[in-house]
Amino acid sequence: MKSESNTRKNNIKYRFRTPLLTISHRSYALDDTADVSSLIDCAEGTDPYGFPDIAGQAIREFDYSRLVDYPHAQEVYDAISQYWKGQAKIIKENIILTDGSDGGMYLINNVFSRPGAVMLGVMPQYIDFVNNAKLAGINYKGIPLDRDRGYSINADDLIDAIDNEISIVYLDNPNNPTGQLIDLEVVEGILYKALMHNIIVVVDEAYGDYVSKNESAIGLIRSYPNLIVMRSMSKGFGLAGIRAGYLVASKNIMKYIRKLTTPYFLSDLTRDIITKVLSTENQIFVHSQKNSNYKQILRNNIGRGLHMAATDDRVSICALFHSDSEIDLRKEFAKEGINVVSGTDFDNAGQSFVRVRMPSENYFQNLIRAVKNIDLL
Amino acid sequence: MKSESNTRKNNIKYRFRTPLLTISHRSYALDDTADVSSLIDCAEGTDPYGFPDIAGQAIREFDYSRLVDYPHAQEVYDAISQYWKGQAKIIKENIILTDGSDGGMYLINNVFSRPGAVMLGVMPQYIDFVNNAKLAGINYKGIPLDRDRGYSINADDLIDAIDNEISIVYLDNPNNPTGQLIDLEVVEGILYKALMHNIIVVVDEAYGDYVSKNESAIGLIRSYPNLIVMRSMSKGFGLAGIRAGYLVASKNIMKYIRKLTTPYFLSDLTRDIITKVLSTENQIFVHSQKNSNYKQILRNNIGRGLHMAATDDRVSICALFHSDSEIDLRKEFAKEGINVVSGTDFDNAGQSFVRVRMPSENYFQNLIRAVKNIDLL
Repeated sequence: MKSESNTRKNNIKYRFRTPLLTISHRSYALDDTADVSSLIDCAEGTDPYGFPDIAGQAIREFDYSRLVDYPHAQEVYDAISQYWKGQAKIIKENIILTDGSDGGMYLINNVFSRPGAVMLGVMPQYIDFVNNAKLAGINYKGIPLDRDRGYSINADDLIDAIDNEISIVYLDNPNNPTGQLIDLEVVEGILYKALMHNIIVVVDEAYGDYVSKNESAIGLIRSYPNLIVMRSMSKGFGLAGIRAGYLVASKNIMKYIRKLTTPYFLSDLTRDIITKVLSTENQIFVHSQKNSNYKQILRNNIGRGLHMAATDDRVSICALFHSDSEIDLRKEFAKEGINVVSGTDFDNAGQSFVRVRMPSENYFQNLIRAVKNIDLL
Repeated sequence: MKSESNTRKNNIKYRFRTPLLTISHRSYALDDTADVSSLIDCAEGTDPYGFPDIAGQAIREFDYSRLVDYPHAQEVYDAISQYWKGQAKIIKENIILTDGSDGGMYLINNVFSRPGAVMLGVMPQYIDFVNNAKLAGINYKGIPLDRDRGYSINADDLIDAIDNEISIVYLDNPNNPTGQLIDLEVVEGILYKALMHNIIVVVDEAYGDYVSKNESAIGLIRSYPNLIVMRSMSKGFGLAGIRAGYLVASKNIMKYIRKLTTPYFLSDLTRDIITKVLSTENQIFVHSQKNSNYKQILRNNIGRGLHMAATDDRVSICALFHSDSEIDLRKEFAKEGINVVSGTDFDNAGQSFVRVRMPSENYFQNLIRAVKNIDLL
């Protein structure tokens, strides 16, 4: 049999979901970091200052004999509920645990994947979500942010674009790559118009731990049945390595999303870490303060060729763009020994644009030296 | 705004993927085990004898400061490759790490979700895979296994059913719930016919660690470009709690599946555990021997009302069914203090059928007592 089957090896006609055949995968996520290991990392969306001590303690105290069993720990739901009690009453039925916020992204795009679905967003925004939606057969309508206005999001443009053609609005808030934050009142305006048209609004708060809980859309979860909030432990909590996040939405939405899940998502070890971290006063405020200081210094050291896009200073990321659109800005940073994410990895940004995550304290002066040099190009 | 939006709370017209609106979620996976905690567990597909010591060592030795970063550990690919070197040359491009084998299931059903897709299988088989395929809009054609023939799989029936209408064949091998194993030669016959019709064959070897590596379809991966093999660390390796598995397939298939993944699947801790466990001589053979002994004793203690479906004695699970189809067999086991999975959680099995996983050594006599009593019903 084998020789004949070998001849067919390369001409099997796969019956894949159609968009997979034509749409490329776009993501700046690196698998093997060997190629960039000599550079200072300002690319990955991790926290520059590390995770709370309690996370390490949770690992040391974990009874690893539990790993023979499927995960069943329930305390994590209480911990999430308690963490948000000042904003909204959320219970287990409002929560789905996910593998980072990317795990939530796959669920959402699968749930809303149907012929003719249209997702509204802004460009640039988190490219993996947009790309994954397209691969799920969802059409994407991205409102281009204006470079001349520092890529700032104009809420009226978004609200105006909401009509019956749209089935889902995707907002990363804070926005990735710029780090800018849309005020909760504006988010509510979007939710309200969307609700009138039976449109789901996904608010991706992966970078939301750098801002106040009061600024989270979770505060609107009881008022807007069309809201899904995505949260991550990877950014503000500094725990990218545990692969944890969660979705919050009305029971009515969760009933459908849950059909595409197993109760076994996230190990009991990961659940224990989340439980302990969320139940402890943490250092996120300090991290936001550091980001603010750093971004202000960064801003004070550019302004000739290099400009910072609209951003909330507390957030760990910002976008820089150069007046000379011919400049490959990621390459220039690499020459200076720093790895950043290129604008070509986003829509409507291009090669003279980069996303910069604040580096750890040891390397901040290297970043300043780099931007000073690149500013003069 | 809030009062008006509240009135709309329950009548928003969600634009979900259509099958989600009409198809129920079917799964025997338990979230909270509080309800069954007083019973001896013979339900969950975990290993009754525990994981190798090296897994505990991997956890104790893990440098938890790595958890601030996204997972990038590459050694796991070499470990998987080395583990299978006697069967096939597989490299990183042939491997995708997944959250248990369920993580692979979601990927596969998403990749082959397209209008008119038809999945061929047998009934009963792993219900989560079948249900998830249906929720992805894939039609399911399950060949009913004959109770009078002890639910044994007839390969000719499967091969005869492969025609151009089918787009994917799903075989769990060993079969879940019965634990029966299809010979590799027969699997090859199915692959060959499927290849002639450009049909993908998924061989789910979640329970495959209880049988020999030589019996794995991974040995056919170089000859059959239409083959996808699913593996899990949850069963034979006793590590259900780490949520780890992997897919093996040709680069050509993986190129498409990978579009729906991130390189961040599985934490570095989980990858370290897999790496160490696969690189160490392990105790699976001993577990298979124990299962064989137990199943033989079990078989010798039934035969009046209770019968064992076709099974491979080395595998940790088997199906028992009662001559009296009115008996709710799961309920009878619960009366005897034992939790098992009901046949109603599978297709074509019913209430007088249960899946029994061998219990840990301490509880085997309880199981024997239970089957003796139920056999007399």
